[in-house]
Amino acid sequence: MVFMAEAYHVDAYKVEGKVDYEKFAKQYGIKLIDEALEKRITKHTKTLHFLLRRKIFYAHRELDWILNEYEKGNPFYIYTGRAPSGPMSIGHLLPFELVRWLQEKFDVDVYIQIPDEEKYLAKKSLNMTLEQIHDISYDNVLDIIALGFKPEKTKIFFDTQYAGKMYKEAVKVARHITFSTVKDAFGFTNESNIGQIFYTSMQAVPAFLKSVEEGRNVPCLIPLAIDQDVHFRVARDVIGKLGYYKPAIMHTKFMPGLNGESKMSSSEENTAIYLKDTPEQVKKKINRALTGQQATAELQKELGGDVDKCMICQYYKYFFEPDDKKLAEIFKAEKNGTLLAGEHKARLADTINAFLKKHNQNKERMRDRVDEFILRD
Amino acid sequence: MVFMAEAYHVDAYKVEGKVDYEKFAKQYGIKLIDEALEKRITKHTKTLHFLLRRKIFYAHRELDWILNEYEKGNPFYIYTGRAPSGPMSIGHLLPFELVRWLQEKFDVDVYIQIPDEEKYLAKKSLNMTLEQIHDISYDNVLDIIALGFKPEKTKIFFDTQYAGKMYKEAVKVARHITFSTVKDAFGFTNESNIGQIFYTSMQAVPAFLKSVEEGRNVPCLIPLAIDQDVHFRVARDVIGKLGYYKPAIMHTKFMPGLNGESKMSSSEENTAIYLKDTPEQVKKKINRALTGQQATAELQKELGGDVDKCMICQYYKYFFEPDDKKLAEIFKAEKNGTLLAGEHKARLADTINAFLKKHNQNKERMRDRVDEFILRD
Repeated sequence: MVFMAEAYHVDAYKVEGKVDYEKFAKQYGIKLIDEALEKRITKHTKTLHFLLRRKIFYAHRELDWILNEYEKGNPFYIYTGRAPSGPMSIGHLLPFELVRWLQEKFDVDVYIQIPDEEKYLAKKSLNMTLEQIHDISYDNVLDIIALGFKPEKTKIFFDTQYAGKMYKEAVKVARHITFSTVKDAFGFTNESNIGQIFYTSMQAVPAFLKSVEEGRNVPCLIPLAIDQDVHFRVARDVIGKLGYYKPAIMHTKFMPGLNGESKMSSSEENTAIYLKDTPEQVKKKINRALTGQQATAELQKELGGDVDKCMICQYYKYFFEPDDKKLAEIFKAEKNGTLLAGEHKARLADTINAFLKKHNQNKERMRDRVDEFILRD
Repeated sequence: MVFMAEAYHVDAYKVEGKVDYEKFAKQYGIKLIDEALEKRITKHTKTLHFLLRRKIFYAHRELDWILNEYEKGNPFYIYTGRAPSGPMSIGHLLPFELVRWLQEKFDVDVYIQIPDEEKYLAKKSLNMTLEQIHDISYDNVLDIIALGFKPEKTKIFFDTQYAGKMYKEAVKVARHITFSTVKDAFGFTNESNIGQIFYTSMQAVPAFLKSVEEGRNVPCLIPLAIDQDVHFRVARDVIGKLGYYKPAIMHTKFMPGLNGESKMSSSEENTAIYLKDTPEQVKKKINRALTGQQATAELQKELGGDVDKCMICQYYKYFFEPDDKKLAEIFKAEKNGTLLAGEHKARLADTINAFLKKHNQNKERMRDRVDEFILRD
């Protein structure tokens, strides 16, 4: 018998098992965001976003350097992205919510790449044409800008539409990356297609595109989920060789699945809340969610629940209760056994549905304004 | 000892040895252009270009289908290209000269791709930036349009400038091509860079781009030198899978090097005549050229020379004497030993210099008109 308790796998195309986030960071030379760094951020932002306070955004590469440059009067820009393959879930919003907050606090430009070719190339099981993926990606863009980005400081671009600017730069990156390197980094084989082999070059470009555009070096900060770090493990040195600043990175954990998995699986729709879910769907999914509660109401009252195992508690923590005091009360009630599963779930479902109602109102309001954000060649 | 008389190698990145053109065609399922096909062409063109008469353009894929469609009222367009890496030689003009003639006779559109990233990715020994290659490629374009293309029916595009249109289509091609396939076809290894691995997808795009633009299937004819056939051995089936006509191809032999090699080597400048060569350089190179003549003037008068081994004769045949009767006279004089090397060479040098003088005058005249030909995103 092999002891598998710690086994997990994270790469750009697959996340499996229970992720050990500290171990992952250590393995790849990523630093944890410590108290000193939190204080340095807070010096500029006054408050700290709950995603940082709760160490959901928990690690980084050279975030200290980004702050050094900022303090020297050399502000950074932010680059993040979303590879469309279908509707967005709450988990997909985490990086964008942090980016929105960083833009508000540091008043910086945000570049959002929509690599509408990535899943087309890498995930044949999608069974969608490039045009179909491009079309659904507009809906993703609406979900993103509904969070409240500044139109005058936010540039969103689709790879298939913006390749006139990007391909030339991607070629420069690609020249420095061998098949051997991407084979190891992404798990490619001889049967991988030559589009997915090339793709990481396209993902690298926005990390120095502003420097290209402005003809001077501009620091770049990339908030991302840890499975995307591999692209920049490959590209950071190359970007340095091209004469640009290596981008800094902030790493978020995954929003866990409602079944307790580290990352919701897109093939199991019931393990995640989608932004398009109806109130009934939300109630149903939350009712089925894993809780940390005991087998019976009596035992729960007597022994209390486990907040780490309770996905209801975790969903409040990751997204739905930004107020730390209120979150503490919820956790306390769960631990003390005073909050029973039924009520616990019903309250979260109501909270989520209130969020989704507002989100979708914002989204509708942005429908006519989407062109203010989108760059075309 | 290994018997190497027949050994040669042709792929997109390397041509070595004495090419057996018929064997090459047979090996890859390419058909020879026979008398029946020549007659079918002549039905439309009245005359036959000397490159066809002399079987320099000697083979094809589905040229008969192109003529079928043309005769049904479904005209084709022509696609060819030039990967810039430096100044152009006479040999580089062969496909363009045929294309110019086909455009004149069939009155069809011509797409000319300038893949300014190809040599940057594949030939690091060039030691040029992508921008430097792009800049020199403008000079190549002037050499091409100096031949006399119709501006209203000729579209020239650089990959780095036209990727906004091309990348999206290249992605669709790339999805159907595995590393395994390009490894075998182009001799790539795990150390090949991911840009050159992807590149063949970009070269495939213009073979169906007009169909994409017009929203209907347009037959495409690609005149090319045989070393480029490999790109379409890979891409033709893929283009078919995407729902477009597979392109037809016409194959040219290489203009031989002045030293008698099958293809002039770009690392040995003296084995080719460049369009930028001065009259003195031309004289010097031609003086050094291999001839089929005997060791002494006496022996030459007695035994005569070998026109197949005489590069002076071959240069007349490949480009500098379009008139078959005059060519026959030159060949006869060589065979009979009545034309001695010195005079033979001096006459060719004069002919080349007259051509280059006129060519460079045409080139200068096109300098202000180049924008009429170039497509940008």
